[in-house]
Amino acid sequence: MKQLGSQTWQFTTRPVILGSSAVVGPEEGEGPLASDFDFIYDSLEMGEKTWEKAERALFMKASVLALEDAGIEQDKLEFFVGGDLMNQIISSSFAARKMGVPYLGVFGACSTSMESLAIASMIVDSGGGKYALAGTASHNCTVEKQFRYPTEYGAQKPPTSQYTVTGSGCAIVGRNDGSGKGPFVVSATLGRIMDLGLKDPLNMGAAMAPAAADTILAHFRDTGLTPGHYDLIVTGDLATVGLPIAKKLLADEGVPMEETTFNDCGLLIYNLDKQKYAIAGGSGCGCSAVVTYGHILKRMRKGELKRVLIVATGALLSPLSYQQGESIPCVAHAIALESGGEEA
Amino acid sequence: MKQLGSQTWQFTTRPVILGSSAVVGPEEGEGPLASDFDFIYDSLEMGEKTWEKAERALFMKASVLALEDAGIEQDKLEFFVGGDLMNQIISSSFAARKMGVPYLGVFGACSTSMESLAIASMIVDSGGGKYALAGTASHNCTVEKQFRYPTEYGAQKPPTSQYTVTGSGCAIVGRNDGSGKGPFVVSATLGRIMDLGLKDPLNMGAAMAPAAADTILAHFRDTGLTPGHYDLIVTGDLATVGLPIAKKLLADEGVPMEETTFNDCGLLIYNLDKQKYAIAGGSGCGCSAVVTYGHILKRMRKGELKRVLIVATGALLSPLSYQQGESIPCVAHAIALESGGEEA
Repeated sequence: MKQLGSQTWQFTTRPVILGSSAVVGPEEGEGPLASDFDFIYDSLEMGEKTWEKAERALFMKASVLALEDAGIEQDKLEFFVGGDLMNQIISSSFAARKMGVPYLGVFGACSTSMESLAIASMIVDSGGGKYALAGTASHNCTVEKQFRYPTEYGAQKPPTSQYTVTGSGCAIVGRNDGSGKGPFVVSATLGRIMDLGLKDPLNMGAAMAPAAADTILAHFRDTGLTPGHYDLIVTGDLATVGLPIAKKLLADEGVPMEETTFNDCGLLIYNLDKQKYAIAGGSGCGCSAVVTYGHILKRMRKGELKRVLIVATGALLSPLSYQQGESIPCVAHAIALESGGEEA
Repeated sequence: MKQLGSQTWQFTTRPVILGSSAVVGPEEGEGPLASDFDFIYDSLEMGEKTWEKAERALFMKASVLALEDAGIEQDKLEFFVGGDLMNQIISSSFAARKMGVPYLGVFGACSTSMESLAIASMIVDSGGGKYALAGTASHNCTVEKQFRYPTEYGAQKPPTSQYTVTGSGCAIVGRNDGSGKGPFVVSATLGRIMDLGLKDPLNMGAAMAPAAADTILAHFRDTGLTPGHYDLIVTGDLATVGLPIAKKLLADEGVPMEETTFNDCGLLIYNLDKQKYAIAGGSGCGCSAVVTYGHILKRMRKGELKRVLIVATGALLSPLSYQQGESIPCVAHAIALESGGEEA
């Protein structure tokens, strides 16, 4: 591994995503990416007695499907790197319990998807393990209950609100065997905490946009690349409110985002014209995970995308920090993926 | 970095703990290790309006003192790896916000101390950064309120109960410059989740003991060492109930723990004969952090200890998982430290 600038890790062996999975709930299954998901639950309950057990079931399903996709037996897996939005990341810990391998719990709110992928890739790249799982999950009914109101209340929401994605995405990272088969994890740019003083948990996109912009700027500063290097740059879940803010912040810094396609996982996952309940777009740590491990990786494997930068954003608040009048610290972690030569 | 067996990372460059800090509350300041702590608050309020703000103040104080001890300017720090027991690890995120460097949030309950040190050491060892901070904090009044009852209720506790340590410990990990000056981070053994079905959050020692034993067994299996290699092996916070269970589990597996001193951070931090409120001993992620970064590192620097294995244990429950009748998944992460040649 090589450090570029101060925030970027270049994975010199270019670890491979051997397999991945994207498991979602019924609402994501009605969205435009439905055909890219590996499993769609037909009810939010998923046959479980509590929303928390449903979220855990999602995560376990995604873990098992990712291993199957990679063709790795469960007892060959060496590390489980995961986290989620529940208090004390219980969904991740209970999913890891089932796997029986060393477990590193992580938390970066909705940036957990790329934080876990960065750490799993570092483990493989630096020789710490042959196979590492990176994953995360969120469920609309657990997260809304925990951070805002139980969905059963039917509380009204302002137009800046985002809709927590019910979904879990996992990736199995393994060593590069030199065969040229990707997709490869090329680099990770780890984010600093940005906090511009916003305090509204119903407007996360605006709070997280500066963190996304800061990490994108750091990525190009550290690597010497420009946006045109990538076929697609996606942010985690800035949605309709946050993405234009991030665009403006980047334009102000003279970064030529017009060279490439710049989009957001929270916008890609729903059809906002039809799925009105999603309001400003998707959020939750399952959002960037299922869009990346479902939609984007499938497009890379088909040769439709060669180089992608995924910038997962996270709002590091807790219900208690919000109630105590604190602002919302935000972070964004970026991962650069590149498809294999034979696939492009 | 080299993988030994399936669970152990050997840090081939042997990163150095350039500086560390241990900041505690008044009760820990009345205990037997008082002279090893860098700062002792004389009140649990620490001049703050809420317990959560007090925990954050502890963490910030410890971060700053660790940098001072290492002789590193704040703007030279490159990564902040931290976590805590609060929902959404807010103490860590708010402390990291102040530092302005890339932030990796982690969660392993009370094993967070060694999980963060393992990841920080991996970053430095694999060339991902020159300086990384690893740290954690807990506060008696935040943690008891969150996981059990607000301390103001004065709820009675059974004799198996442990007492959350008010404290924060941080370490600055840096590259080995070849001068022979330690202490060095030699290896990390990452734990699997162990869950034997215990459900009582007022008896964490018993729940965590199998995880501690499992990680210690993995460490010796992976490294080929025996307990006699170490001058001291300490578990995170098994306290009076858990330590004998771990001892028995290890004896049953034929691991000769009688070759070395085997103790527990939760037992070392209080004088249980005098400090009756601590009941079975200390707990909380500050416990193993302040005992390690205060007491143990100071003894290593004085040449009293040469090789130490710290096995931080964590109970990965949440109040909600407990209320839903779930058992307590537990994990333990071990780090082997060795003092520098000139100091022994």
